[in-house]
Amino acid sequence: MASNGRTGNWGRWGDDDERGALNLVDPSVVLAALAGCTTGKVYSLAIPMGHHSTPQVADRPIPERLTLAAPADAPVYQLYGAVEGVGANEDLIMMPSHAGTHMDALCHVYSDGTVYNGHPAGSFTPKLGASKCGIDQTGSFACRAVMLDVAAWAGEEFLEAGRIVTADDLEATRRAQGTEVRPGDALIVRTGWLEARRKPEGGPPAGAEPGLGLSAVDFIRDHDVAVVGADNAAVESIPFDKNIFLAVHIELLVKLGVTLIEHLWLPEMAADRCFESLLVVGAVPVTGATGSPINPIAIG
Amino acid sequence: MASNGRTGNWGRWGDDDERGALNLVDPSVVLAALAGCTTGKVYSLAIPMGHHSTPQVADRPIPERLTLAAPADAPVYQLYGAVEGVGANEDLIMMPSHAGTHMDALCHVYSDGTVYNGHPAGSFTPKLGASKCGIDQTGSFACRAVMLDVAAWAGEEFLEAGRIVTADDLEATRRAQGTEVRPGDALIVRTGWLEARRKPEGGPPAGAEPGLGLSAVDFIRDHDVAVVGADNAAVESIPFDKNIFLAVHIELLVKLGVTLIEHLWLPEMAADRCFESLLVVGAVPVTGATGSPINPIAIG
Amino acid sequence: MASNGRTGNWGRWGDDDERGALNLVDPSVVLAALAGCTTGKVYSLAIPMGHHSTPQVADRPIPERLTLAAPADAPVYQLYGAVEGVGANEDLIMMPSHAGTHMDALCHVYSDGTVYNGHPAGSFTPKLGASKCGIDQTGSFACRAVMLDVAAWAGEEFLEAGRIVTADDLEATRRAQGTEVRPGDALIVRTGWLEARRKPEGGPPAGAEPGLGLSAVDFIRDHDVAVVGADNAAVESIPFDKNIFLAVHIELLVKLGVTLIEHLWLPEMAADRCFESLLVVGAVPVTGATGSPINPIAIG
Amino acid sequence: MASNGRTGNWGRWGDDDERGALNLVDPSVVLAALAGCTTGKVYSLAIPMGHHSTPQVADRPIPERLTLAAPADAPVYQLYGAVEGVGANEDLIMMPSHAGTHMDALCHVYSDGTVYNGHPAGSFTPKLGASKCGIDQTGSFACRAVMLDVAAWAGEEFLEAGRIVTADDLEATRRAQGTEVRPGDALIVRTGWLEARRKPEGGPPAGAEPGLGLSAVDFIRDHDVAVVGADNAAVESIPFDKNIFLAVHIELLVKLGVTLIEHLWLPEMAADRCFESLLVVGAVPVTGATGSPINPIAIG
Repeated sequence: MASNGRTGNWGRWGDDDERGALNLVDPSVVLAALAGCTTGKVYSLAIPMGHHSTPQVADRPIPERLTLAAPADAPVYQLYGAVEGVGANEDLIMMPSHAGTHMDALCHVYSDGTVYNGHPAGSFTPKLGASKCGIDQTGSFACRAVMLDVAAWAGEEFLEAGRIVTADDLEATRRAQGTEVRPGDALIVRTGWLEARRKPEGGPPAGAEPGLGLSAVDFIRDHDVAVVGADNAAVESIPFDKNIFLAVHIELLVKLGVTLIEHLWLPEMAADRCFESLLVVGAVPVTGATGSPINPIAIG
Repeated sequence: MASNGRTGNWGRWGDDDERGALNLVDPSVVLAALAGCTTGKVYSLAIPMGHHSTPQVADRPIPERLTLAAPADAPVYQLYGAVEGVGANEDLIMMPSHAGTHMDALCHVYSDGTVYNGHPAGSFTPKLGASKCGIDQTGSFACRAVMLDVAAWAGEEFLEAGRIVTADDLEATRRAQGTEVRPGDALIVRTGWLEARRKPEGGPPAGAEPGLGLSAVDFIRDHDVAVVGADNAAVESIPFDKNIFLAVHIELLVKLGVTLIEHLWLPEMAADRCFESLLVVGAVPVTGATGSPINPIAIG
Repeated sequence: MASNGRTGNWGRWGDDDERGALNLVDPSVVLAALAGCTTGKVYSLAIPMGHHSTPQVADRPIPERLTLAAPADAPVYQLYGAVEGVGANEDLIMMPSHAGTHMDALCHVYSDGTVYNGHPAGSFTPKLGASKCGIDQTGSFACRAVMLDVAAWAGEEFLEAGRIVTADDLEATRRAQGTEVRPGDALIVRTGWLEARRKPEGGPPAGAEPGLGLSAVDFIRDHDVAVVGADNAAVESIPFDKNIFLAVHIELLVKLGVTLIEHLWLPEMAADRCFESLLVVGAVPVTGATGSPINPIAIG
Repeated sequence: MASNGRTGNWGRWGDDDERGALNLVDPSVVLAALAGCTTGKVYSLAIPMGHHSTPQVADRPIPERLTLAAPADAPVYQLYGAVEGVGANEDLIMMPSHAGTHMDALCHVYSDGTVYNGHPAGSFTPKLGASKCGIDQTGSFACRAVMLDVAAWAGEEFLEAGRIVTADDLEATRRAQGTEVRPGDALIVRTGWLEARRKPEGGPPAGAEPGLGLSAVDFIRDHDVAVVGADNAAVESIPFDKNIFLAVHIELLVKLGVTLIEHLWLPEMAADRCFESLLVVGAVPVTGATGSPINPIAIG
């Protein structure tokens, strides 16, 4: 059972470190991940970001796309030498940093007054955002990814709401798939939940969700996983394991420095039984942001 | 000289196509690109997105990060079973679709009443955005990238403002580097301009910029390039070649269906003389958007 | 029955006019309105503007207040000579122009290719907004207001959903109250609907609403009313009278140049039977906006 | 000299009070203000709110108007029974709470850990905003206003940058004008600065501004003024009097509970020598906001 003390990986990569377990990924790890690709098939693991249609915590604003310029504005461009019938369309995008398919920066959660590596919670201020462990620190990486399809292993279309995925579930799935988990890997856990929720005919209600429990943290630590993603809202189960507020977030983000990816879209990879891939993530490096919508690209 | 007629690649991938020259990239092309990686070094080609510091056209709004939740809000979370000292930081991000390092969707520019492949300009409306050729169509891809470092070839720190990069410049740089350009490649042109502009001590003034001219379009078409990126504001030169409004945008986006990436950050790749890489782009698939800030990842 | 032809008040105040029936209000009318005040009681007729709690058309974004600066930012102010413990709180406000208690500018609705006074619908473009009849033209005024409490006259707590308020209803209410309607007045119609909708224990469902029908337009035109407000979403009934799309909006905004105010909060005035008042409106003059949230102040 | 101790008006209207000196305005005061109107002329004291053109502190976002619906969207409305050629224009408005002509809520500034009346600074949190002394508490009022045209009295087009307006200046202007200041009045101070800044041919540079000094606080307290407004950025001088950070803001907002209005537009009232008027303000009651752009209406 997770018992990382207060300081799981603190200091492991230096007292100033803000990148956490992604330090496990060096060029040799990337080359090995590249060498493991067999199909060259490119998967986009993001869901569309749209007004009202994006799943997210109810309290956050709705993502919006707003028009900055459009064909009706063509006369505006006369200033720049525009000619009749030529012009540009442009938008303004507003999105909560934790909407849709997104990544949590290590500063997203604080506990006992600190974020990862003992950086003070006060390193985040409303005006300037994160001065430590912001999305600019962990938003760019490539590594090997392993998908553990727990739903398929369990023989279910999707795990039921509130179902806690344990270390044993992960290990059993890994064995059943015959997949190796290596240091520096991204671990992708498939519960089937997001697919169920997005069915045109309607799926299970919002609220409780299946997800990782505290014992899964042991699996992650023991395998020196660098990143964890899942096809649910919080990676961890809702309600939280043992009803501890943000239990797994605290263990992974604050103690281990493991970045989280939420609302992954996995049906194509699951259908292809693509359990190993190269995962590439490039979050927009918004200065001070605590997370970001992303479009993770996996190559089979 | 560019003479693609009205319909360079229109119909080449079907009358309904919205993906343009990215159709040239199939899994075998991706596998070949993977095989070409030699160092495993990961480059982020994006500049920080920040209030006032992001270079962009003056008329667009300034990107903003705003706080949605912060340590001072901890009492708010009592509703969710929060305990003392534990909480979350969250933001709202507002950004023009064409700010910072960004990608133009094929619908970004229209000419003679149409966007790429003859889709009507009216397929974009302010409320719904792009119903054809939006960022969701071209925002996810991986391919081989070739960087032509024209500034280095020219023996200059950066090309001067207004300098038009020609097909001959590209070919001479390619030969000098000994780099092959293949169908489906992303062509990255380095002018040195963005690095000059971002020098702490100040660089050349905003306004005119070096960039591609119309003859460069021939080079791109003849090599069946899938994507073109550069380290400047518009890929093309400003003022426009022959003073034709959006000259190269029209040729590449509208006629050839070649997606553009602007404000690439290239100094590390240039220092490493990394002329060939795997380029992976995952734009947030905002429904209806005409472009998106991105963080392109290159693997050497 | 409303039969204003295409051009009810067009040209009445000149071909360039953008202020419509508010031209009926001159200083002598204002002085008369001031002279009619008897209690000096000040009523705010606006409902709170808040995240999720503001009634509005579902398709519009949710109003948001976001923090720009807060106590946690105090260190930021060191740059400006700040001392320990002193600082400022600031927000960013995002709101649809037609959210909560708000005013429709005359350009809000177009019909047959024109807005009020024959100004072309194309005088609005997405980038620049309204160049004719924007909120800056009608957003500042003071005049006499007459409230017709149709719900009280009908002996109902609130008019039922879909109930069409007719010219006869208005005249009967006017007589029952003994209220005179004068040229240049603001006509405020109380249906009781917004109060019913905002009951803590829940009220009637959203969707259909009581409101003015086409015959009420005759009453408005015959009395030369300058502004019309009501305690519902659209002034007019939903569904629209005779199922004509935006029927009353077209008659009042486009043909008569009568500005509309929606979602008025009237319970205090109704309880006081304050049927005559001085109404003062100051909308933020956002350049090009088609409407604005407002806080109308009435003085009894 | 201002020496209000820590608790100028604290407790004067009860320990729970959040409305401050506006408590001085009761219906009899309003009736007296109405009775003082002589011309019926209506003045809007707000400047336009527009992209880039709105004067404000540089660090705040630029106000934006963005289009939500426009003529090009007409097909969208088919869902609602729209007919050809009929539709609606709508916007989204984004504005800092302290941009353009605006009002400071009493919670805007904190000092020694408290806002007005001893409410704790922690009553403001980034997520929920102000739970005490927000704009909803002071944003709706009508009262008598007295304009003291210090620039005219001084015989200058505008007071020079940094000029501190003293109690003696205010009293001398008052006497020269023959204007009485009564309890519950709004005091409007004209420096000429905003007019100078907005001249088409360019005015004095941004940065230092004329405004009230600490002795003016005595004048305000001694006359029991309810609201203070001026035609500059901060009511008080910049640099601050005696270089005390937010000196006058602390005295007026925190200690006396006097609401501030900034960037008033006064040239028309000044040209008319309209020194006494009815001032009516209705700020949009944004839940939790620390201020709001407003359009103050004065009636002469």
